[in-house]
Amino acid sequence: MEEEAFAKQLDFLREIDRLKSIVRQSPLIDSSRKENSAEHSWHVAMYALVLSEHADSSVDISRVIKMMLIHDIVEIDAGDTPIHSSIGQSDQAEREREAADRLFGLLPDGQGFELRRLWDEFEEAETKDAQFAKSLDRLQPLLHNIAVDGGTWAAAKATKEQVRERYGPTIEKGAAKFWRLASRLVEEHFAER
Amino acid sequence: MEEEAFAKQLDFLREIDRLKSIVRQSPLIDSSRKENSAEHSWHVAMYALVLSEHADSSVDISRVIKMMLIHDIVEIDAGDTPIHSSIGQSDQAEREREAADRLFGLLPDGQGFELRRLWDEFEEAETKDAQFAKSLDRLQPLLHNIAVDGGTWAAAKATKEQVRERYGPTIEKGAAKFWRLASRLVEEHFAER
Repeated sequence: MEEEAFAKQLDFLREIDRLKSIVRQSPLIDSSRKENSAEHSWHVAMYALVLSEHADSSVDISRVIKMMLIHDIVEIDAGDTPIHSSIGQSDQAEREREAADRLFGLLPDGQGFELRRLWDEFEEAETKDAQFAKSLDRLQPLLHNIAVDGGTWAAAKATKEQVRERYGPTIEKGAAKFWRLASRLVEEHFAER
Repeated sequence: MEEEAFAKQLDFLREIDRLKSIVRQSPLIDSSRKENSAEHSWHVAMYALVLSEHADSSVDISRVIKMMLIHDIVEIDAGDTPIHSSIGQSDQAEREREAADRLFGLLPDGQGFELRRLWDEFEEAETKDAQFAKSLDRLQPLLHNIAVDGGTWAAAKATKEQVRERYGPTIEKGAAKFWRLASRLVEEHFAER
């Protein structure tokens, strides 16, 4: 029985290796290539670890880190939907739920259920932990786009207003301080256009 | 003052993006390319999360996850030293310490010191948390090599005895159960040669 649970866990860990082949739109900071979703997940987990002091005191950073680790694994089946794209948005939520059913379903029942609940919490973005996690997930590509002089914003010909609208509310809800800094960086970025 | 600490944290988070360009010897499970150290760090953090029930009851999984997230960032300066290589091993520890000085030194003092201590603990491998972390860091490439029919073992013409010697003690020290399973997989793998 225990042996069987262990085998399921290893199957899951082998399956999620595929997240390393899901390519996002965001560039690496050295512009050498686009980021994949596995290394992105590591990076935003590091954001949570390093920026923890700026979270509301009720936020449990260890839970946020776990959320960051699992938040994108549904992309293995459902793909990445870029923030500046209108394609695929309509049925994306449904495809992601099906992906979550299959992927977390590879794990032993209790564990799969627990991680699925944590992923649902991230998606629903109603708890402080999830809101902080969402904020970091939006802050990271913003900093990358600024570092590479436009990145996905330039490619999508996004205006300053569109950037403010697409990044601002989510970043601000997680930590007002993050948006105070980020909105200043956005202003500076577009002032130089 | 707080502003300055925040700026340092963002500098650190931008700097560690370079871990995504450090290529390891281990292959992805689909054999499409070699793994980089950032996505590897994500994967072994997922190992810690998913395999936590097999750890000694004194192990603090949230600490282990944090160790996994930071364990390889010194490779940004010091590079990756493959397990089957003799080149660079002699001064590797010294180069990694210098890298840790520089990288954790980018953070505000208290935070840099705290994460440096966690990295030192991982390296020294004397605590239960660090031993569990080291075990996962060795288990993951073993499973990848078996999944791709040899991987770095085939490339290095490693014998079964060399594999047992290089992986066994570290994996077993973290969790005896992991080595019971892994050594069986190693036996099966080499029986098919």
